[in-house]
Amino acid sequence: MTTVVREPADFRQACDDARTSSHRVGLVPTMGALHRGHFSLIDEARKHADFIAATIFVNPLQFAPDEDLDRYPRTFESDVSGCRERGVDLVFAPEPESMYPAQFQTQVSVGELTKPLEGEFRPAHFDGVTTVVAKLFNLTGPCAAMFGRKDYQQWKILSRLALDLDMPIEVVGCPIVREPDGLALSSRNRYLSASERERALGIVSGLRRACDAWTEGERSSDMLRSLAGEQVRSEFDRVDYVAAVDPDTLLTAVAQPTRLLIAVAAHLGTTRLIDNVVLGEDPRP
Amino acid sequence: MTTVVREPADFRQACDDARTSSHRVGLVPTMGALHRGHFSLIDEARKHADFIAATIFVNPLQFAPDEDLDRYPRTFESDVSGCRERGVDLVFAPEPESMYPAQFQTQVSVGELTKPLEGEFRPAHFDGVTTVVAKLFNLTGPCAAMFGRKDYQQWKILSRLALDLDMPIEVVGCPIVREPDGLALSSRNRYLSASERERALGIVSGLRRACDAWTEGERSSDMLRSLAGEQVRSEFDRVDYVAAVDPDTLLTAVAQPTRLLIAVAAHLGTTRLIDNVVLGEDPRP
Repeated sequence: MTTVVREPADFRQACDDARTSSHRVGLVPTMGALHRGHFSLIDEARKHADFIAATIFVNPLQFAPDEDLDRYPRTFESDVSGCRERGVDLVFAPEPESMYPAQFQTQVSVGELTKPLEGEFRPAHFDGVTTVVAKLFNLTGPCAAMFGRKDYQQWKILSRLALDLDMPIEVVGCPIVREPDGLALSSRNRYLSASERERALGIVSGLRRACDAWTEGERSSDMLRSLAGEQVRSEFDRVDYVAAVDPDTLLTAVAQPTRLLIAVAAHLGTTRLIDNVVLGEDPRP
Repeated sequence: MTTVVREPADFRQACDDARTSSHRVGLVPTMGALHRGHFSLIDEARKHADFIAATIFVNPLQFAPDEDLDRYPRTFESDVSGCRERGVDLVFAPEPESMYPAQFQTQVSVGELTKPLEGEFRPAHFDGVTTVVAKLFNLTGPCAAMFGRKDYQQWKILSRLALDLDMPIEVVGCPIVREPDGLALSSRNRYLSASERERALGIVSGLRRACDAWTEGERSSDMLRSLAGEQVRSEFDRVDYVAAVDPDTLLTAVAQPTRLLIAVAAHLGTTRLIDNVVLGEDPRP
């Protein structure tokens, strides 16, 4: 049975009850508009826990005023059905007012890891993410929490958050789930027109080209970055970044790296897409 | 028996074990140099919990470069004896390196409440306090945590922190403990020369004068502040602030308040003392 709760106090109580009954609680935080990527997080959570709590909350703190908070897709009924089908035990879908009451004034922020890549283009974004996730961690008390590696930097930041604040939570980064043609699943893909959907494959081509060069022995970060970038630039309207960096520090990689993160953020019309691959670790997209 | 542990992982384990054995864990965070004020926190903790964890950690994050981190009194052996005598179950005394390993980069900060009073004179202080206390809360998992109201603003900030981050912890503010002549106990009092110790009573006289005026019906914040301030200024070398503010917001009080915080910070030589009283609530110092 899937229980849906709206109030933080009810959510905490349900998680406390589960732990008291000797369940291991697994957390899957989402902004709703669930797709197969999210469902893979639920499946992964089952490997770490036997009581699965999913949260559905479009967190206003992590959107800048010019971003897509208002039009972010809300598909609550079908999200709950999807959770039910996959055996989620508890869905927490709070209102912003109960997460951030009038006197709310606390912020959790991670340092160096939040500066490059997304941090350059969405300066307050990660502070919003780390603050809401700290709250969700504290409400839930999970053994493990699942995040998709499409938001690779977010996953690294949240891993750091849990370590730094001594939260006894395994922060699990789950593989990117892709469409048959390679496009990474994203709630924002539904914004794309048919022709934009075609052109979106420019990211996939770029990542694949870097992968192929890596397989052929190329180890120059600059070269791999520029191979990926060419493909992206040829299809996208605007490119925020195409980066080739150390997968752990998100900074300049060593020469002859054994692993290399290629990360991309680019715009098609009013839609911003991100994707990435860790060369030397991930399968070819 | 009082167990002393140095490593965060050992501390967490001991607290987990206590909770697993159905104990309620109470936390008393200190910077050591324990005095009767701290011991009153331990006694208060016993009312909220049956397993008492005290921490002794001079937190470098909350000291500015020009402050007294290096000369802050360290009296570890006698602190542990004091904890033992008062039946503390667990003492956690970590090294800075195990609280803040090389990659550490997370900060917890509270907003408006940290700006006035101490926040004006010690701008990074409260970020250091909230960050270390968030860590200690997460390591301990206490039902309740004790703080002295001599650090009144700190207590209000940490109460806000626990609320805002959904930490299920009662943050208890315990009454100021004073010497017979009224001086609030402080680890920093030992810095005072004999003549400074005399002059330190200027704060007590100031707070008492405000109390007496309040009792006689005075309700003007400006008047009460200036009555307290006169006494402080006549004895101290330098006054950071003498404030009369709302005890909950720490901002300008309403006209005809029913409660009013008088808070003082002032210097005698190289020693900085703070003290306060909530008119309409606290006993006369």
